[in-house]
Amino acid sequence: MQNTIGGLGEFALIRRVTSKFPRTDDVILGPGDDAAVVAAPDGRTVATTDLLVEGRHFRRDWSTARDVGHRAVAQNFADVVAMGARPTGLLIGFAAPADLPLEWAEEFTLGVRDECAAAGGAVVGGDTVGCDTLTIAITALGDLQGRAPVRRDGARPGDVVAYSGHLGLSAAGLALLTAGTAGAAGTAACLDEYRRPSPPYPAGPEAARLGATAMLDVSDGLAQDLGHVCRASGVRIDLDPDLLRPEPALTEAVRVLGEEPGRAVAFMVSGGEDHALAATFPAGADLPGHWHRIGTVLPAAEEELRVTVAGRVPERTGWDHFPGE
Amino acid sequence: MQNTIGGLGEFALIRRVTSKFPRTDDVILGPGDDAAVVAAPDGRTVATTDLLVEGRHFRRDWSTARDVGHRAVAQNFADVVAMGARPTGLLIGFAAPADLPLEWAEEFTLGVRDECAAAGGAVVGGDTVGCDTLTIAITALGDLQGRAPVRRDGARPGDVVAYSGHLGLSAAGLALLTAGTAGAAGTAACLDEYRRPSPPYPAGPEAARLGATAMLDVSDGLAQDLGHVCRASGVRIDLDPDLLRPEPALTEAVRVLGEEPGRAVAFMVSGGEDHALAATFPAGADLPGHWHRIGTVLPAAEEELRVTVAGRVPERTGWDHFPGE
Repeated sequence: MQNTIGGLGEFALIRRVTSKFPRTDDVILGPGDDAAVVAAPDGRTVATTDLLVEGRHFRRDWSTARDVGHRAVAQNFADVVAMGARPTGLLIGFAAPADLPLEWAEEFTLGVRDECAAAGGAVVGGDTVGCDTLTIAITALGDLQGRAPVRRDGARPGDVVAYSGHLGLSAAGLALLTAGTAGAAGTAACLDEYRRPSPPYPAGPEAARLGATAMLDVSDGLAQDLGHVCRASGVRIDLDPDLLRPEPALTEAVRVLGEEPGRAVAFMVSGGEDHALAATFPAGADLPGHWHRIGTVLPAAEEELRVTVAGRVPERTGWDHFPGE
Repeated sequence: MQNTIGGLGEFALIRRVTSKFPRTDDVILGPGDDAAVVAAPDGRTVATTDLLVEGRHFRRDWSTARDVGHRAVAQNFADVVAMGARPTGLLIGFAAPADLPLEWAEEFTLGVRDECAAAGGAVVGGDTVGCDTLTIAITALGDLQGRAPVRRDGARPGDVVAYSGHLGLSAAGLALLTAGTAGAAGTAACLDEYRRPSPPYPAGPEAARLGATAMLDVSDGLAQDLGHVCRASGVRIDLDPDLLRPEPALTEAVRVLGEEPGRAVAFMVSGGEDHALAATFPAGADLPGHWHRIGTVLPAAEEELRVTVAGRVPERTGWDHFPGE
């Protein structure tokens, strides 16, 4: 039992885990009290929460504990920067079976630590409980630095649509794992992005400074997520397939999977979990090269508030955790 | 399937649930975007997180969905007020099996709504995922209103120890349920407190204003929780058994359970989950009547940083979610 979290005991686990987390200037009071105190310099706090459940959001045989730690943090801080905010604090709820190897918990912690460092945020608190299903609950906080939050409802006809980060690689990585062809040459970037998505953190506040009218992170799939912008803003977004240029690893993954080359664009349009940022900008915005223009915002009637690709509705539109009948 | 959350689908569930939550002045941007924006008027945010797992923290046959909603919110906002802060925002992670009755999710939501109203906070965001084990992750935020947070490390020899709220009722309620004697006359308050703990929310900021030197909420048991104050502050806390006066429902519960009358004090000392507030105050503090003086802070050697009752170490000291060997 001594090499499981059950053998160590709850308070010992918390002490061992929190001792690994560096503090930042945003941490006014860190872990160890009833609650943490985090800086909110402009009088507002951005807050978002996500759950990761073993077997649904990760598999211990497909991702290392460290990967899961990275991903858990990345998908939450991606939501923070998608508001145009700077990551500040993170809280971790860790529900695990008593027979979870201590090494898994510790490696997870190291992934959390390193992804926090990449994003610029700090772990400020958490909770550890027993649970038959390994479940990780993350809450991320952020600082808008005096700017208005970039919401989903501000896209206007004539705006350009652009993304920063990766699109389709994570979904292709998952497809490779599912097909048992994960080791194929030239596709490693897909696996990497599936296991440890790399949101372009600085691009979120940057987009806000550049005047982004709407922004979100791509978690459920580009078309599905931009669909939220369409409905909230009362617009249609048309993506230009000629501007949807797959990265080499995605092109290669599609080949290894035995699918037509055209499927690479489908992965970009429907695949989620890369946690790219997608945003709309005024037509004249001067976008840095890591913002890839992919489409245009159009006026739309009430029944046309959706994403199209070259004018047509794409087939697959994403992922629903409780698919309805 | 239509009467389960699986039948409804994730986005429909989120829409249905979030539509029930009223907003407060602290909600700058509520649910529906990548992240919420919550007011943090003094430039700091208090943040805490807790997980509730079915079978460990609640049972669907012992608590209604509404009870669980109340409890999930109460135990988190109790942590916020234990810092001396005012509740502001709440985020809910809801991991549930697809066959969970829709009615359960909706009743849970109503409990969350009502407890938020009692505490003065608002639901600002959440996440809904599928999971074999019903697991609820709550993060609560608060506003210190310009005051210093009341930590665990400020107790000084000579301070008085006091609590506000209930002590021992929840644990007695659980004991009654376990013994199958939950319907006994005169014990309803114990069951109520087990199902829906009622933290004395205003007493937290009040204690801060009254000069509390240390404070926490009693979640794992009075002696165990005050033990954290002892170790953090470098003191011993001696509780006076003559000042530990059981409420009538607790006295009656002990009788129904067939235990000696003296066990009522043991429930007060060892029982957790009422989410009373326990605090230390300077000796001359003028405490309102709902703060019950129960002991004294004493100087202590390194090996005596603990809670005693009339000078003796109490037997049971609380609850560890992963008891070590």
